[in-house]
Amino acid sequence: MSATTRLEMGRAVLAMQPFSALLGAELALWDDQHVQLELPIRAELLQQFGFVHGGVLSYLADNALTFAGGGALGPEIVTAEYKINYLRPAQGERLIARAALVHAGKNQAVCRCEIYALNAGQETLCAAAQGTIARLSSGKGSNGA
Amino acid sequence: MSATTRLEMGRAVLAMQPFSALLGAELALWDDQHVQLELPIRAELLQQFGFVHGGVLSYLADNALTFAGGGALGPEIVTAEYKINYLRPAQGERLIARAALVHAGKNQAVCRCEIYALNAGQETLCAAAQGTIARLSSGKGSNGA
Amino acid sequence: MSATTRLEMGRAVLAMQPFSALLGAELALWDDQHVQLELPIRAELLQQFGFVHGGVLSYLADNALTFAGGGALGPEIVTAEYKINYLRPAQGERLIARAALVHAGKNQAVCRCEIYALNAGQETLCAAAQGTIARLSSGKGSNGA
Amino acid sequence: MSATTRLEMGRAVLAMQPFSALLGAELALWDDQHVQLELPIRAELLQQFGFVHGGVLSYLADNALTFAGGGALGPEIVTAEYKINYLRPAQGERLIARAALVHAGKNQAVCRCEIYALNAGQETLCAAAQGTIARLSSGKGSNGA
Repeated sequence: MSATTRLEMGRAVLAMQPFSALLGAELALWDDQHVQLELPIRAELLQQFGFVHGGVLSYLADNALTFAGGGALGPEIVTAEYKINYLRPAQGERLIARAALVHAGKNQAVCRCEIYALNAGQETLCAAAQGTIARLSSGKGSNGA
Repeated sequence: MSATTRLEMGRAVLAMQPFSALLGAELALWDDQHVQLELPIRAELLQQFGFVHGGVLSYLADNALTFAGGGALGPEIVTAEYKINYLRPAQGERLIARAALVHAGKNQAVCRCEIYALNAGQETLCAAAQGTIARLSSGKGSNGA
Repeated sequence: MSATTRLEMGRAVLAMQPFSALLGAELALWDDQHVQLELPIRAELLQQFGFVHGGVLSYLADNALTFAGGGALGPEIVTAEYKINYLRPAQGERLIARAALVHAGKNQAVCRCEIYALNAGQETLCAAAQGTIARLSSGKGSNGA
Repeated sequence: MSATTRLEMGRAVLAMQPFSALLGAELALWDDQHVQLELPIRAELLQQFGFVHGGVLSYLADNALTFAGGGALGPEIVTAEYKINYLRPAQGERLIARAALVHAGKNQAVCRCEIYALNAGQETLCAAAQGTIARLSSGKGSNGA
């Protein structure tokens, strides 16, 4: 599959996820090994201290990990599990999640993701995640990209 | 603090989180040890296979864990980290997250959470999470409840 | 399978693990849903501050989770992943890990574990873990019980 | 601190951990950002299928993460939590864990680690971990490096 085809396919998947549309996620890059998923920050995505809500970072990590696994396993996949460490409060214009494949087996892939906040042209690392993506046929999970 | 006061305070915190309002989270219970955070399922919260998006479950786990930690540590807290395992696709009328304190130290608390989907009156376990809540003064994190 | 047969089988598996023999793990209980794996504390298992080394707690969590998953999935399994939170320094006579099944699918099981230190007759919670056990045929992992 | 001094100090810490001595861990590298912790594979460290026991990989991840955090936070630290994904069975002559700092705050550091098995001169990635190292004064944990 060409890089362009993959990216178009990924954007079509994202468009079919109502929750991704609600949040406004944009797939900027998707090749064999790397994913870049972005999200413009807006008031509705914040918590009470004025920073982006952790749930938004989690959504982004989950979905970026899933795309990273999907590059190796194909489209019929779900996120099986992941962990996320929040590192700094996220604020600014845009969140940028970069995910990469760590290892792909036949039915599962392990991926990592870092989330940056773009603020006045500066990127700040705000969260780091690691998780497992599984083929749907292997029978579990609830998310998908 | 009385149970009623705590619950009212928790609902006020939730109301101050624009992202929780966007998703429609409702705090049903919050005492010293237990939290119940609920979310009516609606079309905007789904992924492309018609199930609740994993990011919604993650949001709910994150926020429920934070309330569970806040019962021990007070309101000036953030989620430092957590992991979540997705167990089954979530569908139905409502998500119910139940979180409990596992251990509270001076500056951190470790909590667990289970998320159920209420479907035609039946609860199905859909996700399980475990994470760390930290006092804001201990200097990290990006979420809050 | 009778409870006694299962326990004997589990002890035989443990005896076939040289690392479990090196550490001195003892399977005290293993039924459909629960596992109790114990380890007498001795000087060789400590770190530089005189507490049990985190690696020993991790070993115990990993193995107890695997037995808990094996109760549902059978013996051809591996630990796919887990996370552990250390809660308190572990010291005393004996470590007691109690693990339980959270959810079992066809090819994977998610389990939780708590580790207690028995010190002068008192149990203290020292660590909490959550992880995924997978069938060997589903093709990954490196541990086994 | 010079790189040599740091490495010597790290080896002294490792020598003070009876469990690290029992397993035979060797600190090969420790600078500001990176750690390399190695372990010769021997029969006592295996499980029943002839591969290195997951508990050994976990020990190595835990300790390598702690050194990586210690490079930023100083020696009075503990592992607060981590997660590990087992990727492939580990076999061969030697395990090599490489850990690096992801982010250091005032009281906590988040680090990542990959574990390779060296087999007939070839390195194979066997596990990936991510976790939090905390200052002892911030009051929790049970491990140390």
